[in-house]
Amino acid sequence: MDGAKLKSLLRKVGSGKLSPEEALKELKHLPYEDIEIAKIDHHRALRQGIPEVIFARGKRNEDVVSIARAMFKKTGRFLITKASKQIFDALSIKAASFHPHSGIIMAGPKTGPKKGGVLVITAGTADIPVAEEAALTAAYLGNRVDTLYDAGVAGLHRLLGSKNSFEKAKVIIVVAGMEGALPSVVGGITDKPIIAVPTSIGYGTGTGGFSALFAMLNSCVPGIAVMNIDNGFGAACLAHKINTLR
Amino acid sequence: MDGAKLKSLLRKVGSGKLSPEEALKELKHLPYEDIEIAKIDHHRALRQGIPEVIFARGKRNEDVVSIARAMFKKTGRFLITKASKQIFDALSIKAASFHPHSGIIMAGPKTGPKKGGVLVITAGTADIPVAEEAALTAAYLGNRVDTLYDAGVAGLHRLLGSKNSFEKAKVIIVVAGMEGALPSVVGGITDKPIIAVPTSIGYGTGTGGFSALFAMLNSCVPGIAVMNIDNGFGAACLAHKINTLR
Amino acid sequence: MDGAKLKSLLRKVGSGKLSPEEALKELKHLPYEDIEIAKIDHHRALRQGIPEVIFARGKRNEDVVSIARAMFKKTGRFLITKASKQIFDALSIKAASFHPHSGIIMAGPKTGPKKGGVLVITAGTADIPVAEEAALTAAYLGNRVDTLYDAGVAGLHRLLGSKNSFEKAKVIIVVAGMEGALPSVVGGITDKPIIAVPTSIGYGTGTGGFSALFAMLNSCVPGIAVMNIDNGFGAACLAHKINTLR
Amino acid sequence: MDGAKLKSLLRKVGSGKLSPEEALKELKHLPYEDIEIAKIDHHRALRQGIPEVIFARGKRNEDVVSIARAMFKKTGRFLITKASKQIFDALSIKAASFHPHSGIIMAGPKTGPKKGGVLVITAGTADIPVAEEAALTAAYLGNRVDTLYDAGVAGLHRLLGSKNSFEKAKVIIVVAGMEGALPSVVGGITDKPIIAVPTSIGYGTGTGGFSALFAMLNSCVPGIAVMNIDNGFGAACLAHKINTLR
Amino acid sequence: MDGAKLKSLLRKVGSGKLSPEEALKELKHLPYEDIEIAKIDHHRALRQGIPEVIFARGKRNEDVVSIARAMFKKTGRFLITKASKQIFDALSIKAASFHPHSGIIMAGPKTGPKKGGVLVITAGTADIPVAEEAALTAAYLGNRVDTLYDAGVAGLHRLLGSKNSFEKAKVIIVVAGMEGALPSVVGGITDKPIIAVPTSIGYGTGTGGFSALFAMLNSCVPGIAVMNIDNGFGAACLAHKINTLR
Amino acid sequence: MDGAKLKSLLRKVGSGKLSPEEALKELKHLPYEDIEIAKIDHHRALRQGIPEVIFARGKRNEDVVSIARAMFKKTGRFLITKASKQIFDALSIKAASFHPHSGIIMAGPKTGPKKGGVLVITAGTADIPVAEEAALTAAYLGNRVDTLYDAGVAGLHRLLGSKNSFEKAKVIIVVAGMEGALPSVVGGITDKPIIAVPTSIGYGTGTGGFSALFAMLNSCVPGIAVMNIDNGFGAACLAHKINTLR
Amino acid sequence: MDGAKLKSLLRKVGSGKLSPEEALKELKHLPYEDIEIAKIDHHRALRQGIPEVIFARGKRNEDVVSIARAMFKKTGRFLITKASKQIFDALSIKAASFHPHSGIIMAGPKTGPKKGGVLVITAGTADIPVAEEAALTAAYLGNRVDTLYDAGVAGLHRLLGSKNSFEKAKVIIVVAGMEGALPSVVGGITDKPIIAVPTSIGYGTGTGGFSALFAMLNSCVPGIAVMNIDNGFGAACLAHKINTLR
Amino acid sequence: MDGAKLKSLLRKVGSGKLSPEEALKELKHLPYEDIEIAKIDHHRALRQGIPEVIFARGKRNEDVVSIARAMFKKTGRFLITKASKQIFDALSIKAASFHPHSGIIMAGPKTGPKKGGVLVITAGTADIPVAEEAALTAAYLGNRVDTLYDAGVAGLHRLLGSKNSFEKAKVIIVVAGMEGALPSVVGGITDKPIIAVPTSIGYGTGTGGFSALFAMLNSCVPGIAVMNIDNGFGAACLAHKINTLR
Repeated sequence: MDGAKLKSLLRKVGSGKLSPEEALKELKHLPYEDIEIAKIDHHRALRQGIPEVIFARGKRNEDVVSIARAMFKKTGRFLITKASKQIFDALSIKAASFHPHSGIIMAGPKTGPKKGGVLVITAGTADIPVAEEAALTAAYLGNRVDTLYDAGVAGLHRLLGSKNSFEKAKVIIVVAGMEGALPSVVGGITDKPIIAVPTSIGYGTGTGGFSALFAMLNSCVPGIAVMNIDNGFGAACLAHKINTLR
Repeated sequence: MDGAKLKSLLRKVGSGKLSPEEALKELKHLPYEDIEIAKIDHHRALRQGIPEVIFARGKRNEDVVSIARAMFKKTGRFLITKASKQIFDALSIKAASFHPHSGIIMAGPKTGPKKGGVLVITAGTADIPVAEEAALTAAYLGNRVDTLYDAGVAGLHRLLGSKNSFEKAKVIIVVAGMEGALPSVVGGITDKPIIAVPTSIGYGTGTGGFSALFAMLNSCVPGIAVMNIDNGFGAACLAHKINTLR
Repeated sequence: MDGAKLKSLLRKVGSGKLSPEEALKELKHLPYEDIEIAKIDHHRALRQGIPEVIFARGKRNEDVVSIARAMFKKTGRFLITKASKQIFDALSIKAASFHPHSGIIMAGPKTGPKKGGVLVITAGTADIPVAEEAALTAAYLGNRVDTLYDAGVAGLHRLLGSKNSFEKAKVIIVVAGMEGALPSVVGGITDKPIIAVPTSIGYGTGTGGFSALFAMLNSCVPGIAVMNIDNGFGAACLAHKINTLR
Repeated sequence: MDGAKLKSLLRKVGSGKLSPEEALKELKHLPYEDIEIAKIDHHRALRQGIPEVIFARGKRNEDVVSIARAMFKKTGRFLITKASKQIFDALSIKAASFHPHSGIIMAGPKTGPKKGGVLVITAGTADIPVAEEAALTAAYLGNRVDTLYDAGVAGLHRLLGSKNSFEKAKVIIVVAGMEGALPSVVGGITDKPIIAVPTSIGYGTGTGGFSALFAMLNSCVPGIAVMNIDNGFGAACLAHKINTLR
Repeated sequence: MDGAKLKSLLRKVGSGKLSPEEALKELKHLPYEDIEIAKIDHHRALRQGIPEVIFARGKRNEDVVSIARAMFKKTGRFLITKASKQIFDALSIKAASFHPHSGIIMAGPKTGPKKGGVLVITAGTADIPVAEEAALTAAYLGNRVDTLYDAGVAGLHRLLGSKNSFEKAKVIIVVAGMEGALPSVVGGITDKPIIAVPTSIGYGTGTGGFSALFAMLNSCVPGIAVMNIDNGFGAACLAHKINTLR
Repeated sequence: MDGAKLKSLLRKVGSGKLSPEEALKELKHLPYEDIEIAKIDHHRALRQGIPEVIFARGKRNEDVVSIARAMFKKTGRFLITKASKQIFDALSIKAASFHPHSGIIMAGPKTGPKKGGVLVITAGTADIPVAEEAALTAAYLGNRVDTLYDAGVAGLHRLLGSKNSFEKAKVIIVVAGMEGALPSVVGGITDKPIIAVPTSIGYGTGTGGFSALFAMLNSCVPGIAVMNIDNGFGAACLAHKINTLR
Repeated sequence: MDGAKLKSLLRKVGSGKLSPEEALKELKHLPYEDIEIAKIDHHRALRQGIPEVIFARGKRNEDVVSIARAMFKKTGRFLITKASKQIFDALSIKAASFHPHSGIIMAGPKTGPKKGGVLVITAGTADIPVAEEAALTAAYLGNRVDTLYDAGVAGLHRLLGSKNSFEKAKVIIVVAGMEGALPSVVGGITDKPIIAVPTSIGYGTGTGGFSALFAMLNSCVPGIAVMNIDNGFGAACLAHKINTLR
Repeated sequence: MDGAKLKSLLRKVGSGKLSPEEALKELKHLPYEDIEIAKIDHHRALRQGIPEVIFARGKRNEDVVSIARAMFKKTGRFLITKASKQIFDALSIKAASFHPHSGIIMAGPKTGPKKGGVLVITAGTADIPVAEEAALTAAYLGNRVDTLYDAGVAGLHRLLGSKNSFEKAKVIIVVAGMEGALPSVVGGITDKPIIAVPTSIGYGTGTGGFSALFAMLNSCVPGIAVMNIDNGFGAACLAHKINTLR
């Protein structure tokens, strides 16, 4: 529609009804945003490669369902994070799968495997929901994903014994609650970019994940990328961006 | 310069070298920001009526001085907030005045008095530096300014006795530290828009102004506009925006 | 009734039963508050134009219902915020409407449209409940209200494409959770007074809305009026005060 | 029993079996605590005049019930704070009354009215549960209690119009949530000792009562006694101690 | 002067120039605060018995000096808190004394000793500055003051050995930093009203006095009056109010 | 298996197929972690004497049940903390016992009593769940355990009257919520190592246990070992480590 | 030296003095760390490509100087962060340069330019010190670096006008204080990995950089890598790791 | 003197002037604390084995000097923590030594070496001041002390290579700032009791040591004893208590 405005303007210039000078003046006062809408949308579709994702928390179930259906109809795929079994049941889309640990519902083909991959490590078993969110999202975005769960600092050997996984990975997502020490330890034994996700696992002073968050921000290993608490989705997005850098 | 680009584009359309359709396509790929620079600047100059203001804190004195001089040269006026006597001395601009309480340095003609005005109230004498910053900034921006200092809750009568000032004001800035109760009390006796500025006055749990800030955000009087701690400048800007609404 | 007391006193003076000096003395010891009750009430009714509003949270449903009914009987209108469907059902007032997103129940005629209006913008769809509270309250108070939802920073173009709405508004309420960046962006492209409402949308470190609150208090755009977290009602009150300034 | 030990020791001295010097040495090694148990208990009963009170929260209902019954059997009276209707029903003591706002269950005669009394003021209606806890506890402890509810800062006149209540009180308990400004205002118009109780009323930054707490600690009126959030019981205890000072 | 206004009004009624009804209307629009000024001042002077006190922190030395001199001239006495040696030297008032620990400067006769007294206890020697502020202020206000310093929890016997002081006191001020446990312990062995003052003594998590403050607010001994951190002055004011209750 | 790798390498050296120098080089590149797995496991089993413990919170009931069964099958004993009655019922292991206060499920023989023992003290009855977790865990690990509940600061005599228990203990665990003063008081009357566990008992500013935690960290008694809030299990582990020091 | 131990062990196997089985057993009990030292060091040197960097803050000047000299002697280059002019003067190494804004001292050849580069953007001029630390460190590590300073949200056009710089960058470091909104805005217009560094710029609630930190963690743009406050060095390390991914 | 009182009392009983019953009654009202003073002192001297230590911070230099001199005169030894060179110079006691990193001044013979010892580990060089305080205090109290500095998580091999030190230690003090991960790692490889001391090393969110503190409280290794931030002295006291357990 704005294209229409512009086209009309340009036609006036073309037909001599408007001098270039006047058109320039006009253009300066045109709502430039109209032009940008399409452009930025295109840019998003073309370059980011990240299809719209539905964050279910704080939305009503019926809204989530209708957005997901619309998306599925148009693109044949969708990803919902922090969702519930109720939403999955209400969707009744055969192609969709529900992952109860992380509350992920997803459908549609994954992009073929890429060179390099994403390794998702957790400190404990309680961190797995967040890790699964990261792993499934990364897979949905088309990355090869490996996981190494329950490899925390108290059982250092499990971590140290998994160097092969490290070698194969291009980016490492480390998910940890409690004292959040694992990213530092991982960072001491690899040079891969590390994305640290604090989890709200723990009790007492650990409640809410702030202990882990601040530990990760203060790591003695320089250059660890820190995400918000429980934000496995964000970690996957960053891993994907790094993994698909030209 | 971008105007140049555009003009050239439009000329090509005008001369038939480019069809409107092609030009439209071209325009979509033009760096729209170049166009916007001028536009937004103009918009700012024309509509906001707020000349650039120099925030001295965190800048080196020589930088502040050279920016202020350049500004004075071009516009004949300037305002520096959170400045020091050293900066004032280094400036050596006769037209400038230094206000030690608030650390304001200003020069140049004020815009003539407007209808309506800004009343700046403080709870205590220790809140005066922040209040002065608000009052001088508001005056610099061309508003009529009245002040009512040391009218805190413990001496309610001084406040209640000043209704005339209230009647004359169009906007009221209330500056208070400690328990920050004054805006609520003022709000209980007037219907003017109230802008509350917490100050970092106090000790113990009051240190830093958070007590006052949270009290103001939780006022039982609905609709009080809260500023950041010690942000007299911001309060004056909002007062000015309200006061000059068409 | 206090008027009665006063009248009686004055009559005594008028009839010579009391010397002016004695009456003066008497008056000083009269509970001045009695005088003030009426006066302040009158003042409130006359000047603030804000009818009493019922804040339902923390009140028992039966209390809310009986207050609302009494108010409706006397004035033909009322507004309840943070209410529930149960309250609405218990009310059984035909003229009333229930708005489930925001939990607003309202009844009665709105004052006719004024010049200028209130534009309510949200960053995301999850901010809509708070925005709706602001929009409905503002409308209830007699303001013209426009809304622009889901225009957050990640989709900047939707915001930039809505300049027309900006032009028509006199005051802009910006409702945002998470990083609370939207008021700064809006403030960069308009000179209207901006009222920022942080919402408790988000998780991890964003829980509770403090991230958004502090971002808004620290905006690089000077003069943004900040409200308490989720306080859409307060924003509407301030917008109304600004919008009806003489 | 320790008395027994001591008596036996003293008898040995009395009978010459032990020299005073040896007894002194012995006494120094006696577990002094044994002596103290009785003494301190006696002291408590005799001087504090505060019968044991049962804090129900965090205790199992059956435990609360059995403690209350035992207490009632022995002393004919008891006071339970933060209790529920279930506990009251399970008690099935006719003499007991249940106060649903505050969750107080109490039984037994109150001590006769004393000279001077306790005035309990609230800022809003939502503060009444905490105020009722204070008022009932103070009454239970034998104090004359007056209440003045919903006299907040936004309706200053209601407060100012109640000077008579102020004159009759010996101690004033002020219960307020949100911005917690009321104690400061009350403190500005009376010289009675003021006990301020912040309540966890409010939302956003006011959640949990910290806004009100810090405001009260930072009051510009010197000498306000501050209690923990929602601690109406503690306020009543202090009021009682002050009210019964010899 | 307002008395003048009123008198004139009443005279007009007296002389028939104004009907009582008209006078009533007039009165409602008179700035009632003018009446109140004198009244409240009188009230303050008469009943509170607390002469104005100068809080030096945040004021410029010259201002403190001139206020103190004016006060001394008029009343023959004054009290400055949080003052420095420089201020004392600049004052050059022979009758004044400077107390370096607490930064108190005071002059003028103390009111004669009263029945009952104030006992000031500190946990450690580092709490003495705040305790001295409390003790000197209480003495200045005319209370009998005893002190018991360095009687902390780690040396419980020193405290327990001072029961005589407890018996003589009417109110007890307990000043403590670090873990702030002392008021609870004192409260366990006396029934006097206790005023707890947390101090900013300590390091690490104790910095700023919040540890002590929260411990005091959460004391298992009900009814402890808590002051702001380092607020010895406030404690003395409350002690004075309690101590002089009629 | 890694042993296999190593053995094969060493055999090659033994058979002259590999020079020691080459083997050394090889060894440096062997994944050393493989060696460590066994080694560290052995070390753990042999030296720590702490059998694996199952932390139920955050795990699904079925997972807890299957882990516990596997452990019981292999070792004849197990300990689950923060568990529920549902888990206990689902387990249906006769040898197991469920402790509802603390949510501990345990089975299997305790190691015979050791010299010295662990004394667990609580300030109030509400602290018992955490204390029970500590006491049962310590017993499970083979320590002799005594308990002294409800011996808080307000009833100092109960504590002081229990010196015998102190003498018999080798390590003392002090569990306290609210103001957390008890460890300081205990520390003032014994020289045993003290392990302090703050509990999330209390309301208002005490919510969550931070008051108690910070009080314990700031104790004026040097050398108190502080645990996370509600971490009775950790306290027992430390007590066990100290109690079994060679 | 450990190599020596190992070599000797292997020689014994080679000479038949030790069976492979015995050697295996021996190896398991060898302090494996000795082996690892060299290995890990080698790994670090070889793969991370990040030469040791000296963090000057908290170290004594003489220590910084001697470490830097030793490093310079051995490797011909070094980097010191958070250093002062005094250290630079004391160093007296001609090849070294001092960068006063960021306090960086560096010497030695930079690695030749790589494909792709690092773009460092700041919101304001006050963020430049942290940005310069990031830019110089990234350059020192061998990355091509571009900068775009003072492109904050209030002057959106400057940012939008710099798309060319975006296209050329492979990773973007965004440095911002105050409300920390810039990374979200940048993230809305590019698909490059974004590293966000909050700065401790601002006052009031912005003090210390927490406002900016939390805003960045809660960005509505998924996948932003967040660094600790003022940690320009860490941002450069992550950018380098991403930029040199094979 | 209280002994005198008691002796006199006992003599009266001995001489028949007082019946045992009367004496018992008397004794109950005797200030028992007087008895306790000596007793508790004796207890402290005899059993804790910890001579009084002078905490210099917050005390005036002259006070520290006079206390230290008195202590030296009486016992031939003393320990001052957090002291300065000025205090050391003012002391002019030849036997004393000053340790500038930690600010320790100490004098007098150390008790002979004991079986078992204390190992003090630091994560970085910046943690050494706190570690030195711990090490010197432990030595002063008579413990054998080893140190292992700069063995943080980023250089895991240095730690793992020092197992011998671990074997020789009976208690391990781990001093760490920043993310505070070291105690968890140490706890994963030893079964010795671990005392963790967070330090206020770091910047941004690490400022003040809270990151390290919370990480240590939330360690996945159960049973780590946590001290207040920078409290090396406390760690040494606990280590000493554990190390000297009978």
